[in-house]
Amino acid sequence: MSKHSFGLVQHQGLSTPAEALDASINGIHDAVAQGAELVLLQELHTGPYFCQQENAENFTLAETIPGPTTDALAKIARDKNIVIVASIFEKRAAGLYHNTAVVIERDGSIVGRYRKMHIPDDPGYYEKYYFTPGDGDSAHGFRPIQTSVGKLGILVCWDQWYPEAARLMALAGADVLLYPTAIGWEPQDDQAEKDRQLDAWITVQRAHAIANGIPVLSCNRVGFEADPHATVGDSNAGVEFWGNSFIAGPQGELLVRAPHDQASVLVTEFDFAHNEKVRQAWPFLRDRRIDAYGDLLKRYRDL
Amino acid sequence: MSKHSFGLVQHQGLSTPAEALDASINGIHDAVAQGAELVLLQELHTGPYFCQQENAENFTLAETIPGPTTDALAKIARDKNIVIVASIFEKRAAGLYHNTAVVIERDGSIVGRYRKMHIPDDPGYYEKYYFTPGDGDSAHGFRPIQTSVGKLGILVCWDQWYPEAARLMALAGADVLLYPTAIGWEPQDDQAEKDRQLDAWITVQRAHAIANGIPVLSCNRVGFEADPHATVGDSNAGVEFWGNSFIAGPQGELLVRAPHDQASVLVTEFDFAHNEKVRQAWPFLRDRRIDAYGDLLKRYRDL
Repeated sequence: MSKHSFGLVQHQGLSTPAEALDASINGIHDAVAQGAELVLLQELHTGPYFCQQENAENFTLAETIPGPTTDALAKIARDKNIVIVASIFEKRAAGLYHNTAVVIERDGSIVGRYRKMHIPDDPGYYEKYYFTPGDGDSAHGFRPIQTSVGKLGILVCWDQWYPEAARLMALAGADVLLYPTAIGWEPQDDQAEKDRQLDAWITVQRAHAIANGIPVLSCNRVGFEADPHATVGDSNAGVEFWGNSFIAGPQGELLVRAPHDQASVLVTEFDFAHNEKVRQAWPFLRDRRIDAYGDLLKRYRDL
Repeated sequence: MSKHSFGLVQHQGLSTPAEALDASINGIHDAVAQGAELVLLQELHTGPYFCQQENAENFTLAETIPGPTTDALAKIARDKNIVIVASIFEKRAAGLYHNTAVVIERDGSIVGRYRKMHIPDDPGYYEKYYFTPGDGDSAHGFRPIQTSVGKLGILVCWDQWYPEAARLMALAGADVLLYPTAIGWEPQDDQAEKDRQLDAWITVQRAHAIANGIPVLSCNRVGFEADPHATVGDSNAGVEFWGNSFIAGPQGELLVRAPHDQASVLVTEFDFAHNEKVRQAWPFLRDRRIDAYGDLLKRYRDL
């Protein structure tokens, strides 16, 4: 069986974990009603994007895997007979936290996890404070996860800008790339800059589909979240998460795309056998110059 | 001086080398009139795309560097005080030929060459018969070429599908990527497939700009070229080269784009100092996981 329906749930970063988890669960039900056998949730789906500030109290949001959120999702996975890919603020040990995507199978079991490898740190996205990068050794790192609906190449947010990450997943046999993400506009940027940023974000991920001949799902959040540092009257400071979650096919063709300002559920059926036809037509993997790629392992090439 | 005007010349694959070189030269004059300090020519610009068949007689089209074409272009480079990037069917030795892009400086001197590293071979594009892949050793391979208008990351056609190639050029300090290319539609494909292919081609190259924070120029040919194998009455067999040469900025934003069916000259001014601003806003090079990229040097990851 190479045909499977995949869905994703885009919603707002609601203020309490219970409300946010409810939004995810309602979306899962909607996706299942549309036939989804796998549902992808947005990055850190159980609340607001807390990385707008560095605040030690936020470490209390981290949870173990398994933990309360995976327990709740495992119940739904069993009840609905689906696979769920959920982004969790993972507590691995005291003082050691990751931005992790966990995969729950149809029977409710946890069959794998991916710990975000590339960690951003920019004004409004202070992730290096919270998240230890995923381990780079051969047992971890960029490894796809085998499930009943295919081999999942799960990457998270900032990873989406790195062709290396997508390629490594494809080279390890991923049937599809999945990106939980949280990205938005700074309200002070002008419209032209906002348009360039959104277009760049979609374009670079569609290109991962093209270069590797596999579909891509990207699940982002929507809604304005205020900067916790904002002073009274500075209501403009914060991030306007731009939604636009999308699903693209193995030629990078845009299949469905969510609005920039509303909760949304997208579902699409894939035939992973079609990936191979696409790769036969444009056989990029055949001709890679691995003899000449050594300097990809350097920080910079001082020729 | 970080500001420079770059141009490109898109034309048909005219039937004699003299006619085709004239078309290139006329385009160069047009680009210079529009202010270009560098002009990029299309792949194998001195004639039809001869790789639609494997025919040993075509090796007579190869020429040395320097040779007649570079001599003619060197004169224009001197006269117009410009840099020219020209794609040549290079004869390196008897029985050893490359698909090469050569860089001619304002004084007419040849300051560097790039030999196509990834060589395709598909129905209608029998390039592995004609072109030895460029050497992968550290003295050759993916090395940008320093000129008076910036450090040029020149890649050729099939290379454009490989994020590895673009990244290696960026890591070696390229200010800009330049792709001479020859790609088109097969007339028997339906319009939806043609649209997907063209969109994929533009998207993947714009993504190289985005991932690396540098502009991209891509110079393709236009016009239908019949398959030399076509039998009488099979007038449909061949390649309809799709033009659509374009220039994109360092956020992948499309700046100018040529039509699919007409000769065209595009010129755009860049400020390479702006590349650094773009990279500071989205600092992808900072966070590459070179500790975990080792398997990029494998043909496939048999985990």
